[in-house]
Amino acid sequence: MSTKSDDELARERLIDLAVKFYDQFDEGDIPHMDIPTRTKSNIVFDEDSKVWVYGDRKSTRSANSVRGARKLLKATYAIEFLVRQLEENRSSTLRELYYLSESWDAEEAHFNDQDESNQLIEDLEIVSKVTREDFHMRPEESGATLMGPLKLREQTRRGEREIHCQEDVGEGGYQIPNNPDTIEFIDHDIDFILCVETGGMRDRLIENGFDTQYNCLIVHLKGQPARATRRITKRLHDELDLPVVVFTDGDPWSYRIYGSVAYGSIKSAHLSEYLATPEAQFVGIQPEDIVEYDLPTDPLADSDVNALQSELDDPRFQSDYWTEQIELQLDIEKKAEQQALASRGLDFVTDEYLPTRLDEMGVI
Amino acid sequence: MSTKSDDELARERLIDLAVKFYDQFDEGDIPHMDIPTRTKSNIVFDEDSKVWVYGDRKSTRSANSVRGARKLLKATYAIEFLVRQLEENRSSTLRELYYLSESWDAEEAHFNDQDESNQLIEDLEIVSKVTREDFHMRPEESGATLMGPLKLREQTRRGEREIHCQEDVGEGGYQIPNNPDTIEFIDHDIDFILCVETGGMRDRLIENGFDTQYNCLIVHLKGQPARATRRITKRLHDELDLPVVVFTDGDPWSYRIYGSVAYGSIKSAHLSEYLATPEAQFVGIQPEDIVEYDLPTDPLADSDVNALQSELDDPRFQSDYWTEQIELQLDIEKKAEQQALASRGLDFVTDEYLPTRLDEMGVI
Repeated sequence: MSTKSDDELARERLIDLAVKFYDQFDEGDIPHMDIPTRTKSNIVFDEDSKVWVYGDRKSTRSANSVRGARKLLKATYAIEFLVRQLEENRSSTLRELYYLSESWDAEEAHFNDQDESNQLIEDLEIVSKVTREDFHMRPEESGATLMGPLKLREQTRRGEREIHCQEDVGEGGYQIPNNPDTIEFIDHDIDFILCVETGGMRDRLIENGFDTQYNCLIVHLKGQPARATRRITKRLHDELDLPVVVFTDGDPWSYRIYGSVAYGSIKSAHLSEYLATPEAQFVGIQPEDIVEYDLPTDPLADSDVNALQSELDDPRFQSDYWTEQIELQLDIEKKAEQQALASRGLDFVTDEYLPTRLDEMGVI
Repeated sequence: MSTKSDDELARERLIDLAVKFYDQFDEGDIPHMDIPTRTKSNIVFDEDSKVWVYGDRKSTRSANSVRGARKLLKATYAIEFLVRQLEENRSSTLRELYYLSESWDAEEAHFNDQDESNQLIEDLEIVSKVTREDFHMRPEESGATLMGPLKLREQTRRGEREIHCQEDVGEGGYQIPNNPDTIEFIDHDIDFILCVETGGMRDRLIENGFDTQYNCLIVHLKGQPARATRRITKRLHDELDLPVVVFTDGDPWSYRIYGSVAYGSIKSAHLSEYLATPEAQFVGIQPEDIVEYDLPTDPLADSDVNALQSELDDPRFQSDYWTEQIELQLDIEKKAEQQALASRGLDFVTDEYLPTRLDEMGVI
């Protein structure tokens, strides 16, 4: 939960950064900030924790050049803004921060483009070990929805809301807020968490009552999932000790969606602990399903073939299972969407496909 | 509201189409179906109703060729499927229909691609005068969210849900269901409807309490709005007699977003009556705001210039106001996002910009 003390912790850590610059000045040192090098070569897949983490190499942002000094100036302005934002219990988007810098009196502190302000916020996340959400920075795009036997309490600016994610919501489900750490899980009757890639399939499962029949919580991923969606999935797994399965299309991009839920991404390696659920299992369309069920398919495009080949080298997919499936897919040269299961009738997915797969996996 | 009788009406209209084919056979005529020609040249802007409508030209799908006969075969299979779907109170997506055709026994009736099945459903909408939603065809992508002083009752498959769109929802708001005609408005304290293009701005307005301060219902458009979002906006306007304003970025694509809410689109000219709200007013970033408030901007790309020029010829934008704004924008060669207002502080949009604009427009 985002409590008063989370905000205080974030505020303190930010002020600590500014104090460090002050002390460096005071001691006659050139102000600087060390952060892990964020190039692909310094990001490693940690075999123990099964997520991406930074390696040991560090980069230094130092005021010993005009360019470096300007970066630190922008950092201090951003820190001041974030601290005030936390004190006033307000929040803002990354894009607002970029535009807002135009109002800062030191023209040198204005951001040149949004990439620059986005990267600064990531730097501050890494050095302060506080997530963007705890700085009260909202994403542009909201998370997706939940539907299932879960009662939760959300701390909103307008007071607490207790919501049951089946009984108190419409067919659209419960909309995950930008910062899901404002949610407390009160009560549930969930046996497993089912993350679903597409809206069409999510609606199919709800219409067929899969969530009530199997006591599962259906999380709509909406394609590549937003941070809020990955975060709440991780919290559901960790805090309620529930298995997580990910149901996607059968193509290389969807395997990456599974990978980002399970193992995190290179871009957000500093957040793996916060966002990734390494125990999540894949229940998406497998190349062997395409063969076994004779599903309607599309041919692989060149970009699909390239993506599959790079997955063969991706540490997240180094298992006999994935090697076999990916090689089979390269061999049959076909991909299939999850909704292709409808070629065997609208109930095939809930009567046959998922129960069989989930039973084999020991989830039900 | 989607009542038993809506379903029955849809079912009857579909069966009427099949009966017509039967009668044509019976009378020795070659079965055929007349529909308005759906090319750009047969779509006209109706100056009275201020929306796009079809002209007088008709096309005929006739079984007098193999190709035409196959089209009618597919139509009858689709009609049978839709009628059964309505009888069983089920629903499906356009994509599922495409895949499902693979299970039909007549191989000639299988759809070749999803464009073909999508177009058939549009044809059936037009000839039956029943919307896709009333066939229980769900869109792939869901509508957006509502937040404001509105109490509604949604008829879900799991029973009725009464939801107040401020008190009973989290910060994410109320998720609009795929078919908003399952909603009944029970009670409200709304003075106007404010449709907002981006998630970042929607969140800003909620955080700043704009919905409570001005008694407005905030509808998140999420870019180009889904049918469900346009439909509920129209129903709110018509049934509750409320003004609608549309708040977007200041670029030609955003003017089109406003246009699709207000006047409908060429693609869905047969649905203008169902989806368009011609009384909706534009409160988005105007080229004159870029000048007056000295907003941070991006230069116009070539595609922006082309889009602006084609808007000068677009009947929806034939007014002194739009001509002046578009010519000004072509002159200054700049565009600005709604979040650019943050360059004057996070509260500028709610303390200054919107109150001034809405006051000038007579909305508040």
